[in-house]
Amino acid sequence: MAKVLCVLYDDPIDGVPEQYARDEIPRITKYHDGQTAPTPSAIDFKPGELLGSVSGELGLRAFLEAQGHVLVVTSDKDGPDSEFERELIDAEVVISQPFWPAYLTAARIAKAPQLKLALTAGIGSDHVDLQAAIERGITVAEVTFSNSISVAEHVVMMILSLVRNYLPSHEWVLKGGWNIADCAARAYDLEGMHVGTVAAGRIGSGVLRRLKPFEVNLHYTDRHRLPEHVEKELGVTWHPDVESMVKVCDVVTINCPLHPETEHLFDERMIAKMKRGAYIVNTARGKICDRDAIARALESGQLAGYAGDVWFPQPAPRDHPWRTMPHHGMTPHTSGTTLSAQARYAAGAREILECWFSKRPIREEYLIVDGGRLAGAGAHAYSAGNATSGSEETSRLKTS
Amino acid sequence: MAKVLCVLYDDPIDGVPEQYARDEIPRITKYHDGQTAPTPSAIDFKPGELLGSVSGELGLRAFLEAQGHVLVVTSDKDGPDSEFERELIDAEVVISQPFWPAYLTAARIAKAPQLKLALTAGIGSDHVDLQAAIERGITVAEVTFSNSISVAEHVVMMILSLVRNYLPSHEWVLKGGWNIADCAARAYDLEGMHVGTVAAGRIGSGVLRRLKPFEVNLHYTDRHRLPEHVEKELGVTWHPDVESMVKVCDVVTINCPLHPETEHLFDERMIAKMKRGAYIVNTARGKICDRDAIARALESGQLAGYAGDVWFPQPAPRDHPWRTMPHHGMTPHTSGTTLSAQARYAAGAREILECWFSKRPIREEYLIVDGGRLAGAGAHAYSAGNATSGSEETSRLKTS
Repeated sequence: MAKVLCVLYDDPIDGVPEQYARDEIPRITKYHDGQTAPTPSAIDFKPGELLGSVSGELGLRAFLEAQGHVLVVTSDKDGPDSEFERELIDAEVVISQPFWPAYLTAARIAKAPQLKLALTAGIGSDHVDLQAAIERGITVAEVTFSNSISVAEHVVMMILSLVRNYLPSHEWVLKGGWNIADCAARAYDLEGMHVGTVAAGRIGSGVLRRLKPFEVNLHYTDRHRLPEHVEKELGVTWHPDVESMVKVCDVVTINCPLHPETEHLFDERMIAKMKRGAYIVNTARGKICDRDAIARALESGQLAGYAGDVWFPQPAPRDHPWRTMPHHGMTPHTSGTTLSAQARYAAGAREILECWFSKRPIREEYLIVDGGRLAGAGAHAYSAGNATSGSEETSRLKTS
Repeated sequence: MAKVLCVLYDDPIDGVPEQYARDEIPRITKYHDGQTAPTPSAIDFKPGELLGSVSGELGLRAFLEAQGHVLVVTSDKDGPDSEFERELIDAEVVISQPFWPAYLTAARIAKAPQLKLALTAGIGSDHVDLQAAIERGITVAEVTFSNSISVAEHVVMMILSLVRNYLPSHEWVLKGGWNIADCAARAYDLEGMHVGTVAAGRIGSGVLRRLKPFEVNLHYTDRHRLPEHVEKELGVTWHPDVESMVKVCDVVTINCPLHPETEHLFDERMIAKMKRGAYIVNTARGKICDRDAIARALESGQLAGYAGDVWFPQPAPRDHPWRTMPHHGMTPHTSGTTLSAQARYAAGAREILECWFSKRPIREEYLIVDGGRLAGAGAHAYSAGNATSGSEETSRLKTS
């Protein structure tokens, strides 16, 4: 009988919809590399409904309670008096999300002697202190690939929107104008541009594949080189490092995990190496970019646009400069939590819990830390060490 | 010595930029089907600068004046006292644009005895009364393909934005919130959806090609069927008519010309045949959709979203319902007038004028009406008759 503590974002301000915009979502059974979508024994939710917010409970309550486990769901995640910190004390499993990260710092892990499994409902476990997890023998797992394509779509959407000056043009409609020249003066076609991705993992290569027919010149840098036939098929040029890639790119998209080597990778120095008027789309992690360097580069015109859905900290404070800097196309951290993605990562969370409680092995591709070491997926993506230290303590939320 | 009358949209409200967002634009020399980009003998402008607004003059003044011709450029296009109507009386050539259409109605053509060439700087000559042009022996030409890819990119951008609920999510950033669930409750992935295009000409097939790697199910209807190998390569299903296609689609994009058979094609009846919660993206012409039927379908939830950049009339009045209907992602008519597109259609306008004044044949693919009949490009796209009658007279502009 275990206690499962699940930290999810709040429900919509007007409550969960009685009727959704659409009646169904497409059924995805496998991903581009052949990996199957999550395969729990059953699900207790309707795909296409809100599962990722508090009342949705990832569709896990009936399943867990039937086995005698206790499920605690909260959105109250920050500070020493938060429900998260209070409930953590005797939890065996913590389920969290990158969109509304419950930071599992070393200090918190020290206060959670029962904790054995940290499960990310989504992808990206940088909000967990992996070093501390390794030392304590905690298993860290995530639902690999469950929302990679969601994010890749978001990236392509944001690249097109920045380059084509979509948001300001839409704004003219709302303001009642017809200022074609004002819209056009910053609008370009993507065709013919040089687009590069920092990392070509599931998301990065998904972006490359989607951009290929746009007749752009594709580039990537990654410590793991793509197979030669994939490079050829995509017509993509590999660069040995980020600097050499960004120099030739009109658009740079960041699709690497956050770890000590990528923290503040895009700082004043790196941005200065880019072409004047380049665009950055970062849906990876906010901390990969130097917050103030990005805002300054947009003010000066060194960057023509910046978009993404990742911030530091999260939730972003009301006065975060990325809310008000010019030429941005930011969203809250939503790219990986479409209703379509939620159905997959909720099923994946259940699959992992079914394995956990029946002592069957969790799929190798889901494991970040296992048995006191970085596991398959973790070793590919992460370095040793920890980039989350002190994270949430700086936030002191000012959001609505 | 001819008079060339050129109707262009106004300059930006704060004037033409001293420095543009970017220092150059990619050079496109040919299109997907092998057609070469415009090949004037020379150009007198810098690609990437504003050419499509009044002060840009499509970069034509030096060229025309060197040959002794007179160039008149105006944005004043509506009503009997407009500069357009006054200057039309002795013009041999009228150059106009779809974005800011100078409607060449039968009545106006009757008042322009010298008029011999109606040149569209862009694509889509439905603002010209083709029947009247046929009867008067006026040549109608446009810069075929110059901005087709611009529009195809806009379509993909808008499909992703509607499906993924981009604009409302961005709005939460501006409002200072972090309302993930409010963003996600209407956000879906495109992956796995059924997407269909009404017409698969240069734009429609450009959209299909770009969408293929998104792992969607592609559909089209067109009176000209694509070659079998293209259907196979794209994995696209042909439908004999619009009704049978829209029934199975989650997203419908309209990429056909406006002519009597397509006017109000998407009316209450057609929209009722669509799946509940479908999306429409129309970058073709506003009149292809019934204005009020679209707004009602968004209110009722029959449509989950509508986006596009074409309106009727243009400029859209301040009180046009498409500015305020729910779940829309409209822009002013800008998709085909990016700085990248302007460089191509300005070069194309010059190419056509060079041919015209030196009595060399204009490229077949540019001709809509020639020698008193629908020519190559025109016969493919248009039917006899006219869909623009009375157009601008109803507008009585209320825009800023």
